[in-house]
Amino acid sequence: MGDVVGAGVIVGCCRECGSCKANIEQYCNKRIWSYNDIYTDGKPTQGGFASAMVVDQKFVIKIPSGLAPEQAAPLLCAGVTVYSPLKHFGLMTGGLKGAIMGLGGVGHMGVKIAKAMGHHVTVISSSDRKRKEAMDHLGADAYLLSSDEAQMAAATNSLDYIIDTVPAFHPLEPYLSLLKVNGKLILMGVITQPLQFVTPAVMLGRKTITGSFIGSMDETQEMLEFCEKKGLTSMIEMVKMEQINEAMERLERNDVRYRFVVDVAGSKLAP
Amino acid sequence: MGDVVGAGVIVGCCRECGSCKANIEQYCNKRIWSYNDIYTDGKPTQGGFASAMVVDQKFVIKIPSGLAPEQAAPLLCAGVTVYSPLKHFGLMTGGLKGAIMGLGGVGHMGVKIAKAMGHHVTVISSSDRKRKEAMDHLGADAYLLSSDEAQMAAATNSLDYIIDTVPAFHPLEPYLSLLKVNGKLILMGVITQPLQFVTPAVMLGRKTITGSFIGSMDETQEMLEFCEKKGLTSMIEMVKMEQINEAMERLERNDVRYRFVVDVAGSKLAP
Repeated sequence: MGDVVGAGVIVGCCRECGSCKANIEQYCNKRIWSYNDIYTDGKPTQGGFASAMVVDQKFVIKIPSGLAPEQAAPLLCAGVTVYSPLKHFGLMTGGLKGAIMGLGGVGHMGVKIAKAMGHHVTVISSSDRKRKEAMDHLGADAYLLSSDEAQMAAATNSLDYIIDTVPAFHPLEPYLSLLKVNGKLILMGVITQPLQFVTPAVMLGRKTITGSFIGSMDETQEMLEFCEKKGLTSMIEMVKMEQINEAMERLERNDVRYRFVVDVAGSKLAP
Repeated sequence: MGDVVGAGVIVGCCRECGSCKANIEQYCNKRIWSYNDIYTDGKPTQGGFASAMVVDQKFVIKIPSGLAPEQAAPLLCAGVTVYSPLKHFGLMTGGLKGAIMGLGGVGHMGVKIAKAMGHHVTVISSSDRKRKEAMDHLGADAYLLSSDEAQMAAATNSLDYIIDTVPAFHPLEPYLSLLKVNGKLILMGVITQPLQFVTPAVMLGRKTITGSFIGSMDETQEMLEFCEKKGLTSMIEMVKMEQINEAMERLERNDVRYRFVVDVAGSKLAP
C-alpha cells in the first residue's frame, strides 16, 4: 500500500510461450506495448500520456525509495535496455573494458551503468562534438574518434564488448576489430538497411554479433535496485503537458539531453 | 613411449598473448600452420605430405587406442572445428535442436558429433540431392529444404543453433528466423563477400551471429576421447602418394566423401 510504482514499455504477454515461461517476456511474440498498442480490453494503450493506467501486477515495478520517480522513468526503458544484455552475456564483472557507440538516451545510460559495474568505458564517436560531455559529465574513461585511423588501429583487440546504439547504417568491421577474442558487439539500434560483415571478422577471434531488446520485468526491478545502490540517475528534462508540442518538435531535432519526462499529474492540461 | 600421436592444423604459437595464456592458442596472432607456413627453423611446413615431422609437444595429440589413425586424422581439423563451438557456446547438453548447413568435411562431422551429444539434428540444404546421404548414412533426424518456403516457415523459432559451413555468400535472415530466442548462428565458412542482416533479426530474440576457428589443443584431445567413447568415425577415402594428383583433381571437383587421407608411410613414392 502506498508504494510508488512504474510501468515500462510492455504491459502484457501470452504467459504460455517459451519466453514467457522463462521470464523473458520481452521476447514473447504476443507482447503488448504500453503505448500505440491495443490492450486486452480492446482499447488503445496511451503510455506516458495517460493520467492513470490499470496494469497487471506482473508489469508493475516498485520504484525504490531512493530513486525519484522522474529519475526512474527513463530507466524503465533506456536503463534496462543496457542492463539486460550486460547481465545476460556475463558482462557485469568489474574490470572489463567496454565501449558505447552513440550517446543518446540509451547510450548515456550505458556509460553510467557500465561505469557503476566497474568497467573501463570508452565512448566511440565519429566526431569530437561529444567528447566533453562523455568525459566530464558522464564519466567515461576514454573517447575514441572512429574517423581517426591511428586511434582505431591503436585500440585493436582491446574491448570485451561494444554496446552499439547507433540507429542508422554503419560498417561493422572497424568495430569488430576493436574487440578482443570472444568479444561481443551488441546492437541496439533498429536498422532495416542490412549491416554487413565478412566471416573472418567473427571467426578469427570467435567474436559475437548480437542484439538485445529492452529487458525482462525481473531485470527491470533488479536494475532499479542497482541504480539506487550505486546512486545512479538518468539525465532528464521535465516538461508539463502544456509544453508537449514544443518537446515533440525538439525531439525531432534530437534536442534533448537525454530524455524528456512528462509530468502528467502536475500539468494543468492533464487529460 | 610407443604412443600413436597426431599433429593438427597448428604447430606453433607465441605462448605470451592472452589467447595463448587462456589455452585457446588457435586465436594467437602468431600461430604457425602445419602446412604452407614457415616453422621456427625458417623451413616450410609440409603438413600431411611429410613422412616425418618434429613437433613441439604442446601440439602433439595422443590418438586414443580405440581410434584408427586414419580415422583420427580428419577429426584433428573437421572434428574439432565443430566440437569447439558446441563446447564453448554451452551447446553440449542433450536434447538441444541443432542444424547443420553444408554437408562437406566439416558438416558431415557436425551431424555425427551433434547426434552423439544427444541433439535432434536437421540438415539444411538448398536441394534434395543430399537427403538420402544425410538421413540414411549420417543419421540426421530431419532434412530441411531451404528453397521450400512452407518448410522454412514451419521451422521458424525451432532451433537452438545452426552450424553454417557454407563457404559462399548466402542470405542470413532466413536462417536467423529458424533460431529460437537466444539461438546461435555459428559461421564456419571463410566468406569474403560481406554477409548481411537487419538488426531486428538479432535483437528480437537476442540471437547471436558468431564464428569459430578450429579448436584448442585441449579441446582436440577431449574431442578424440569423445569420439572414441561414442564410437564415432569420420567418412574417409584412403589414398597413397602415387594417387595424389588424381585425388587433387577430384578435390577440385568436390568429388570426395568426405575427406581424403594420404597414407604417406604406406606409399611407394614416400618423400
